[in-house]
Amino acid sequence: MEFQTKIGKSTPDQIFVHGYNLTEDLIGNITLADMAFLGAKHRKPTENESKMLNAILVAICEHGFTPSALSTRLTYLGSPESVQAAVAAGLLGAGTVYLGAMEYVAEMLQKAFEKYGEDKDIKELASIIISERKENGLQLPGFGHPIHKPADPRTTKLFEISEQLGFHGKNSQLLLEIHRQFCEEKGKTITLNAVGAIGAIMADMEIDYRIVKAFAVASRAVGLVGHIVEEMEAGRKKGVGQQLFDFVEEHTDYQG
Amino acid sequence: MEFQTKIGKSTPDQIFVHGYNLTEDLIGNITLADMAFLGAKHRKPTENESKMLNAILVAICEHGFTPSALSTRLTYLGSPESVQAAVAAGLLGAGTVYLGAMEYVAEMLQKAFEKYGEDKDIKELASIIISERKENGLQLPGFGHPIHKPADPRTTKLFEISEQLGFHGKNSQLLLEIHRQFCEEKGKTITLNAVGAIGAIMADMEIDYRIVKAFAVASRAVGLVGHIVEEMEAGRKKGVGQQLFDFVEEHTDYQG
Amino acid sequence: MEFQTKIGKSTPDQIFVHGYNLTEDLIGNITLADMAFLGAKHRKPTENESKMLNAILVAICEHGFTPSALSTRLTYLGSPESVQAAVAAGLLGAGTVYLGAMEYVAEMLQKAFEKYGEDKDIKELASIIISERKENGLQLPGFGHPIHKPADPRTTKLFEISEQLGFHGKNSQLLLEIHRQFCEEKGKTITLNAVGAIGAIMADMEIDYRIVKAFAVASRAVGLVGHIVEEMEAGRKKGVGQQLFDFVEEHTDYQG
Amino acid sequence: MEFQTKIGKSTPDQIFVHGYNLTEDLIGNITLADMAFLGAKHRKPTENESKMLNAILVAICEHGFTPSALSTRLTYLGSPESVQAAVAAGLLGAGTVYLGAMEYVAEMLQKAFEKYGEDKDIKELASIIISERKENGLQLPGFGHPIHKPADPRTTKLFEISEQLGFHGKNSQLLLEIHRQFCEEKGKTITLNAVGAIGAIMADMEIDYRIVKAFAVASRAVGLVGHIVEEMEAGRKKGVGQQLFDFVEEHTDYQG
Repeated sequence: MEFQTKIGKSTPDQIFVHGYNLTEDLIGNITLADMAFLGAKHRKPTENESKMLNAILVAICEHGFTPSALSTRLTYLGSPESVQAAVAAGLLGAGTVYLGAMEYVAEMLQKAFEKYGEDKDIKELASIIISERKENGLQLPGFGHPIHKPADPRTTKLFEISEQLGFHGKNSQLLLEIHRQFCEEKGKTITLNAVGAIGAIMADMEIDYRIVKAFAVASRAVGLVGHIVEEMEAGRKKGVGQQLFDFVEEHTDYQG
Repeated sequence: MEFQTKIGKSTPDQIFVHGYNLTEDLIGNITLADMAFLGAKHRKPTENESKMLNAILVAICEHGFTPSALSTRLTYLGSPESVQAAVAAGLLGAGTVYLGAMEYVAEMLQKAFEKYGEDKDIKELASIIISERKENGLQLPGFGHPIHKPADPRTTKLFEISEQLGFHGKNSQLLLEIHRQFCEEKGKTITLNAVGAIGAIMADMEIDYRIVKAFAVASRAVGLVGHIVEEMEAGRKKGVGQQLFDFVEEHTDYQG
Repeated sequence: MEFQTKIGKSTPDQIFVHGYNLTEDLIGNITLADMAFLGAKHRKPTENESKMLNAILVAICEHGFTPSALSTRLTYLGSPESVQAAVAAGLLGAGTVYLGAMEYVAEMLQKAFEKYGEDKDIKELASIIISERKENGLQLPGFGHPIHKPADPRTTKLFEISEQLGFHGKNSQLLLEIHRQFCEEKGKTITLNAVGAIGAIMADMEIDYRIVKAFAVASRAVGLVGHIVEEMEAGRKKGVGQQLFDFVEEHTDYQG
Repeated sequence: MEFQTKIGKSTPDQIFVHGYNLTEDLIGNITLADMAFLGAKHRKPTENESKMLNAILVAICEHGFTPSALSTRLTYLGSPESVQAAVAAGLLGAGTVYLGAMEYVAEMLQKAFEKYGEDKDIKELASIIISERKENGLQLPGFGHPIHKPADPRTTKLFEISEQLGFHGKNSQLLLEIHRQFCEEKGKTITLNAVGAIGAIMADMEIDYRIVKAFAVASRAVGLVGHIVEEMEAGRKKGVGQQLFDFVEEHTDYQG
């Protein structure tokens, strides 16, 4: 019985992580985000890959009082001794509804090129994808936003950076073309949201769609630190968790 | 009823996070780790703070087949559709036993200076702390390691970096002196482990001890991405999760 | 702003839960399992419903060293102060792979009657369902078991009880007929597993398929208590969590 | 390498759980709550133990819109496909603040008898415990309630049942005497809350204080089923999770 891994090994005076010497090659040389890249690709990112990835993860790290952040604060209220539980509770809502689209966009794009090859005209390919999803009753992922209209400022920024750094490849082009045709069809501009843009850029960074959402989850864990800090600083009684609980108690209409 | 926060606000075309414009000031300018710093201190880190923090979080991000990583893999086995659940399950073991020491070291040091002031001689202060904990039946946190003896290579590296970057302050000095006296007393070298070193350096970065562990938890979330990737790549039947489960089933001695 | 609920209300000297007076009508009168029924159906179960539900939940409560139970034990190793985290970690693996079938069976059956009405001949209906799933590339849920062959003893027992108590209705009949045709087609007996049987019986108890798995999750939470107890009794060093971790450490083949 | 357990074993046609034949001895014979007892004590409860335990677990199963229940609903909003994640998120807040007292009461009582023997006069023992905790700066657990004043109706009911069933032993007597002296000292009636009463009754049932809270956690998992059902029935847009999120968004005062 041998459990095989490329992840890590320790000797009394050395630690190896994905083939690198942790203290010589990694600590002090790479950023935290690069460790996720290392986990996904088994190699250190290039400088541009690191910049792109940090930009992406900074973009989705924090988004205010999401249901996720509220769960973290409510959990912290009952278990202030377990910050890990508060973070975990906040991650558990990162399911199909909010962050899922990142994975679905990457999947849609990666499978499109897998199925139809690299050489098809982008306009034609976009049109095929739109038709296929319509036939199968599948929504187009990555479009629409309740607040950011007509454009999501993160999408604009991330595509600007991805062009500069050389990651504006076929996947991003295909998503933008799908978006163009979709808006044309609807007769109005529907927001191409940040989660959608990230799905395309990560596909252009050649990150497997199945692991794309795990990056977002890790980024959210970083963002939740700030929510726990605010609860600590406000103190138990004035924290958002307690206030929310009090408010609900006072405004409950019992119909039993 | 108003819920107050410094964390975030969105308008149709702008997003503000901790007082910064997300797309103008943060995306493309700071690293993922800096977002945790921003959450804890309500300001962007300086360049040196960012380097130090990334070094720390890289150091504790990954440590091979920890109980934490095994929980992630076993959870992924049953819920491959929910990577967030697999990550969360891995974080839940980050309690008092493994990562707790980081918080306890920072607490011990920050409270020592709070109680005895900044001016006491370090040797004397170290001796007081050791005596006090002995009297109260409290262990000294941050010492000992099952594999890394007599030194933890991460500790050496992190203190080297903290000196270069200007974070080798009173807290690190006090921990090193406590360590020196403790080893002297024992008559042998006990490892000052990475978790202990990090507790001291983060205290020197003026991060409140109560939030220190949340940084480690966020870092572990990043590290767990790699474990999920290995399970994906190995495929269901050959993944470590399945192998572990099979092995236990075949080697169970039922005593009911 | 009013949050509406039938679940609960408190006054200084009374508590109401789903319309019942907690201390007068529920405590001492109903079982724990009945509280889940009350949550799902907004009424107390009849005596037979209570017996059936307890039988079902006892049947799936415990199944030895599952990946779920191992995650609980590994989590407890790092966070012995947070039994709630250990239980939660164990529940997170209750995804599509192991317990999902319970929901899929109930869904398949409930939707079959919804689509084709109550009056269709069971044999014909079973045959339609089998064909439809084949066409759509969907597996038949609830069949097969790695250990229990040719029959799952829990299936036999649960169907025996459901007949006695009057819950052997159209859903169970349809599943049994699907099973019969499926085995005939394969030319051998494939186990109708407990999770499948439960999906059918719960459908016959008129519990919505979307909530069926939540019952199983609650039952597993009860079962995990015993795993935590064993870890406590064995003591840190001799617990299964620690042994598992040690074993993996000693048998890791690092390929980085 | 052998992993020892009393919990479970499967052969092709039999399953053993804690030494009992699952299908012959347990399914149809015991209640779900009894499975937790079996896990904690390695034997089936007597009829009275089963009644007492069910009464206790019914009493703490549900308490309306707790922070815990709100986390479950907010998690369900993002991950409706993972009811196990919604339940887990709700359990994670069951830390030191709300349910912890159950464990602390049982610990206080069990350690009192361990330290001072069984023969000391209850009045004297209560007085010693009160003094000792005061000296050590420890609060008395189990007292006080924000709504139920001057008495918690569950406490009254549970003590009534525990007398009838023969579980009103030394631990309950000691807690009641501590309560009497504490109120006398304060010059007013402080509520002896349900969580405190349960800690005492479970101590009288000879359940180790370290496992007492795990029972409560399992019971809460059962209660959370009802919260998920309400979210399902209300539908995404009208669920409490979504309403809560909307309300917070509209009432956020950004101070960045």
